Amino acid sequence: MTEFIARGTRFAALPSPFPMKRGASLHGAQVAYETWGTLDAARSNAILIVTGLSPSAHAASHPGNPDAGWWEAMLGAGKPIDTGRWFVVCVNTLGSCKGSTGPASTNPATGEPYGLDFPDLSVEDCANAAFELVRSLGIEKLACVIGNSMGGMVALAYLKLHPGSSRGHVNVSGSARALPFSIAIRSLQREAIRLDPAWNDGVYDDAHYPVNGMRMARKLGVVTYRSAMEWDGRFGRVRLEDEMREEDDPFGLEFEVERYLEAHAQRFVYQFDPNCYLYLSRSMDWFDLAEYADGDVMAGLASIRVEKSLSIGVHTDILFPLQQQEQIADGLRAGGAESEFVHLPSPQGHDAFLVDIARFGPVIAGFLGRL
Amino acid sequence: MTEFIARGTRFAALPSPFPMKRGASLHGAQVAYETWGTLDAARSNAILIVTGLSPSAHAASHPGNPDAGWWEAMLGAGKPIDTGRWFVVCVNTLGSCKGSTGPASTNPATGEPYGLDFPDLSVEDCANAAFELVRSLGIEKLACVIGNSMGGMVALAYLKLHPGSSRGHVNVSGSARALPFSIAIRSLQREAIRLDPAWNDGVYDDAHYPVNGMRMARKLGVVTYRSAMEWDGRFGRVRLEDEMREEDDPFGLEFEVERYLEAHAQRFVYQFDPNCYLYLSRSMDWFDLAEYADGDVMAGLASIRVEKSLSIGVHTDILFPLQQQEQIADGLRAGGAESEFVHLPSPQGHDAFLVDIARFGPVIAGFLGRL
Repeated sequence: MTEFIARGTRFAALPSPFPMKRGASLHGAQVAYETWGTLDAARSNAILIVTGLSPSAHAASHPGNPDAGWWEAMLGAGKPIDTGRWFVVCVNTLGSCKGSTGPASTNPATGEPYGLDFPDLSVEDCANAAFELVRSLGIEKLACVIGNSMGGMVALAYLKLHPGSSRGHVNVSGSARALPFSIAIRSLQREAIRLDPAWNDGVYDDAHYPVNGMRMARKLGVVTYRSAMEWDGRFGRVRLEDEMREEDDPFGLEFEVERYLEAHAQRFVYQFDPNCYLYLSRSMDWFDLAEYADGDVMAGLASIRVEKSLSIGVHTDILFPLQQQEQIADGLRAGGAESEFVHLPSPQGHDAFLVDIARFGPVIAGFLGRL
Repeated sequence: MTEFIARGTRFAALPSPFPMKRGASLHGAQVAYETWGTLDAARSNAILIVTGLSPSAHAASHPGNPDAGWWEAMLGAGKPIDTGRWFVVCVNTLGSCKGSTGPASTNPATGEPYGLDFPDLSVEDCANAAFELVRSLGIEKLACVIGNSMGGMVALAYLKLHPGSSRGHVNVSGSARALPFSIAIRSLQREAIRLDPAWNDGVYDDAHYPVNGMRMARKLGVVTYRSAMEWDGRFGRVRLEDEMREEDDPFGLEFEVERYLEAHAQRFVYQFDPNCYLYLSRSMDWFDLAEYADGDVMAGLASIRVEKSLSIGVHTDILFPLQQQEQIADGLRAGGAESEFVHLPSPQGHDAFLVDIARFGPVIAGFLGRL
């Protein structure tokens, strides 16, 4: 199996057994994490970052791994999340394959990868695993928990399940519950993987690997992570040069946008484990803060206790639409938080927070400055 | 092979050979069509309807086929397209499988289905075939050509290639060129079909048929034909009853929205030929009126001569976004047409014209009344 774990990654053991929300427990489980900056004497300057579906804990470069991270421009000395002031922890999500225990990990009961024997994974389990990591680092109360996309769900679950665990919260392109359009997209992505004969009910290796299923899932993801507006300007109707086309394939790649999707897909296929993808994807469909408040999602949000919060989103996000970020802000405010809602005109859709640092950076820096 | 052709369908032979835009010719080709109402003595009351990707010519019931058609509420005596006044012709698109010649038809050169030996199909070929049908009916000039979705492209090509062929034009949720988001979606749909081993480079039969590829293509279509807003209200997070779930499938259908997609997919799989789907889908990617005006799509539109036009769209359409309908209206106006643009608040997305007759009907009826 491809090596998914970056150098410089650290590991924290979870309590064993580690109980899962929907039943069963993990034994000998761990989470991977990385840190930046220095924890102050009062242990009051810690920020936890919980990620979207696929990123590792390597959010930015550090002495143990100088490679650029997935939020390199956001995180570091003098950057919007200023590691001169903050001690920052980024955790690889439980259920992922970047060092945390998940379906690709070895099942201690069998010595084989868990595959589909991994217990049902919920967003709440990811939150509890992150909470155990923070506690293991000797931090009683975070200054802030920052969650992007799926991480926005994880962060809300973290705050809900662990009252008083953080003073502040930044929710970036997140949501308090999955809605049917995003459920539909994720369902299709999972189906593409499951339909690939090489998926083989979750038993595969590098030689027999669901390449096409993963390619389709990733392409569909990228289509929904960006925006039509961005692509109109970026790709228009530009066609590939003849030498980049396969002559014998009448339905092969022809337009630049198709090549872009294919390149994204090729990069992803072996960088993420298919079963982990299925589990994490499904956990998002299941997430609904309304479960904690008799089906009322606003009441679920209002039951969360946090002092200051910021919810950010963009108009061009079709996967986690802007109304969901506004709902988070309204709900947390109803729960007593000093709550801000900021919508940005980024054209890049759901992924804007990864690339439009010029807009997201100052908003996050400003919020952290007021914490 | 499944019988695709509804009773009451009529057929018109195309000139043989029938030259195709990108080269090669069809021999012995035909188009299927249906009609409603009576052509007046002056032959001046004819309306041609060109369809979206998959509909047949059976837009509405008539004595030869009392089954409801795909635009039943729009078309008939006293309905918005009033067959008491108009002689209406609906044509099955060239390249389709509902009676017109396409990749599923028998290749007269071999006696076998064309499959991938069918020549490259362009939107312009569909327009030329429709034009030949209209001429064969003895109609020199249409009162109006109405095109929905892909039919909006076909109608624009019809008007461009045959100046003076129609007094009026209604373009419904159409576009003057394919943009990268819709190209990306269609590219994924085609890839899903091509990845299905049963597609077999276009050689299949009912026993070995790319069911899963067609299911995926259709589901992805439906996701982009409707809107997140509609689904939030229609499905929310409603789950299936336990008895509708497959116990042994941990990633099987769980939410109502997934069941809805599956039901749509199941209905479609054997109702449309996979190769025809590939050809028609690709023809949309290729379509660009800018080709006729040195890359300037507005100039391409402005080179069209039509007296009165109406372009309609909805805010929730992510596949043919509203700006494209506004562009059509602006471009035809620049070309001298008395041009109207109407945007409707339908929540149903691209497919709204099929279901929101309460909004679309009066607008189309009003336009036809002023013709």
